[in-house]
Amino acid sequence: MVKIEQDERIDYLPNEKLKIIQSPDVFSFSMDAILLAKFCYVPIQKGKIIDLCTGNGVIPLILSERSKADIIGVEIQERLYKMAFRSAQLNGRHEQLNFIHEDIKDIDKTLTRGSFDVVTCNPPYFKNVTEKDWNENHHFAIARHEIYCTLDDVIRISSELVKQKGKVAIVHRPDRLIDIIMIMRKYHIEPKRIQFIHPKKEKEANILLIEGIKNGNPGIKILQPLFVYDNDNTYTKQFSDVYFS
Amino acid sequence: MVKIEQDERIDYLPNEKLKIIQSPDVFSFSMDAILLAKFCYVPIQKGKIIDLCTGNGVIPLILSERSKADIIGVEIQERLYKMAFRSAQLNGRHEQLNFIHEDIKDIDKTLTRGSFDVVTCNPPYFKNVTEKDWNENHHFAIARHEIYCTLDDVIRISSELVKQKGKVAIVHRPDRLIDIIMIMRKYHIEPKRIQFIHPKKEKEANILLIEGIKNGNPGIKILQPLFVYDNDNTYTKQFSDVYFS
Repeated sequence: MVKIEQDERIDYLPNEKLKIIQSPDVFSFSMDAILLAKFCYVPIQKGKIIDLCTGNGVIPLILSERSKADIIGVEIQERLYKMAFRSAQLNGRHEQLNFIHEDIKDIDKTLTRGSFDVVTCNPPYFKNVTEKDWNENHHFAIARHEIYCTLDDVIRISSELVKQKGKVAIVHRPDRLIDIIMIMRKYHIEPKRIQFIHPKKEKEANILLIEGIKNGNPGIKILQPLFVYDNDNTYTKQFSDVYFS
Repeated sequence: MVKIEQDERIDYLPNEKLKIIQSPDVFSFSMDAILLAKFCYVPIQKGKIIDLCTGNGVIPLILSERSKADIIGVEIQERLYKMAFRSAQLNGRHEQLNFIHEDIKDIDKTLTRGSFDVVTCNPPYFKNVTEKDWNENHHFAIARHEIYCTLDDVIRISSELVKQKGKVAIVHRPDRLIDIIMIMRKYHIEPKRIQFIHPKKEKEANILLIEGIKNGNPGIKILQPLFVYDNDNTYTKQFSDVYFS
């Protein structure tokens, strides 16, 4: 029996096959995380995958539908770590999914460098945090702002953890594209695949999915763009086929 | 009376307002050049624009429809330079459009650094040239391959020519995106706007339009993607509205 705290609820993931413990006071998964979990390469039968800044573990949960690999999620916030841990139990995936309550900057004390086939991360997006953000809700502030880890930390640590020719996949805001590319090259992750998500077809992109290969050869593909809403504000078929699958 | 050589013909630009001298033996303008000339920022009433690797001058011709600025095109191949020069005359634009027959690497002998509002360039796309490419047609080989100028040369020289906060706009293949971004940052051109062109909506991008600002602030926008063909292989309305306008 999995314990559910008073402020928590059990939600379904978009495919309605998996359950996840969420709390509106602490954290709920975002569309961005789901799209990253669908976008990234995974080894099918075996291997090791690690998800940094895993939150309540939504990315590992979805990856467990796509891969039989061992999957680890790392989360700095104890409250979220515990939710992720219990969600794995709730879905009977606790043998495949392991969660570590740790600062990713200390993760090399626990895990072996260069041992992962894939690293995924939906990091905090915003550089600066205001006192108001912080005071309103520490949990949200930590998940959204570069308080405990910067983009540079995320990519440096990803590069340390991934194997030679292994893959690092990140979701972020498109306005950070240039920084992400510069930092990936700095840490020898060659960007190889990008997909932009646009809210509608005539709008600028608002989500960036990017995957690189450790010491990969130069040459990037820009995949077909993904549009979320049709002009009548319903989900496009293209989006539904990805998001609800 | 403008002289037309034996292998030359007079074509219309897609908007059917301007004429251009072309030769199938030497050079014909590409869709890529037209799209760059429509994509880039221009000052409307006055200013100075320079187009590097101008070929037969298609970009300056189109820009002259969008701007009253003085426009210079630079071309290393004498044959193409002469075609560009005569096309300007043919359209009665020889006061606004000037062409220089010069290697862009020597252009700072002729022109003042930091004096242009906008620099545009549709550079050679391919790194290496084979002996076969070279022997088949020198004109095409020079226009298509990094023989007389590399991507680094193009961006370095663009950065030298453009004013503080002026704009540099380039069309290239998306697979060089990472190199372009790295080189732009190296020469203090901050990438600010990108548009990807996809042949069809479910295909990868095959043309990259990118504009940066000299010493601009970080933060890039990914514009709505442009799809060239509908599923029935006719031009999309979106494409026609840009290309034939």
